[in-house]
Amino acid sequence: MTSINDSGPRELLEQPNYAVVSTLSKDGSIHDTIVWISAENGSVAVNSAVGRLWPANLERDPHVTVLVFEAGNPYHFVEIRGTASASTDDADDHINALAKKYIGEDEYPYRQPGEQRIKFTIEPQHVRYVKQG
Amino acid sequence: MTSINDSGPRELLEQPNYAVVSTLSKDGSIHDTIVWISAENGSVAVNSAVGRLWPANLERDPHVTVLVFEAGNPYHFVEIRGTASASTDDADDHINALAKKYIGEDEYPYRQPGEQRIKFTIEPQHVRYVKQG
Repeated sequence: MTSINDSGPRELLEQPNYAVVSTLSKDGSIHDTIVWISAENGSVAVNSAVGRLWPANLERDPHVTVLVFEAGNPYHFVEIRGTASASTDDADDHINALAKKYIGEDEYPYRQPGEQRIKFTIEPQHVRYVKQG
Repeated sequence: MTSINDSGPRELLEQPNYAVVSTLSKDGSIHDTIVWISAENGSVAVNSAVGRLWPANLERDPHVTVLVFEAGNPYHFVEIRGTASASTDDADDHINALAKKYIGEDEYPYRQPGEQRIKFTIEPQHVRYVKQG
């Protein structure tokens, strides 16, 4: 079975490649958006601000799928389906680590006044890796 | 309300930018994959081969979301939620038109023996356009 620790998925996740995160909205439709993503210890993690739509979706229904694609060659991607668990105590450290990975900043520069960050750790249940072209 | 005919979404869809298509699998999980996409007359269309997972998902449940992102700047994207309707009679012409758009070929070169193409036309019910960076 494919794992995110295999060399192909691992390299996609190590590089500053973007992810699409897909969650289920209350009306049954699927919500897709673009996020930063990190990987460690066999799971992946994404980060948002409390009160936005997709974190609210995940707090209601933890089913989540992320697709991480290579910048410049989107037919090289990994799709990870799993369940998300929320945490806030390590969410500030996590968004700063993501800022370091994606934009080379020690501290996340886009924080809004009063914003509370939330981190979702995703345990992969199914991993699909595709490389074409 | 944002429309795919607005200039930002329209330009994203006119260029050979890739889309993530999200569908609901039988077990309730979300299936994400990368596809080519076209736009005309206020709707968008994607194409696959009969028998694959995501077209089977759409034939069972027409709820679908596509996210089309700019190559090289994924924080410029349009998310389109809607319902899909399948057709096969114009699916061959459609995959050839997509091959022209994405790889400059008059005829889709990756057809498998015996493969039947299927086209899904998606009527947008909600359009969200984001441009950062």
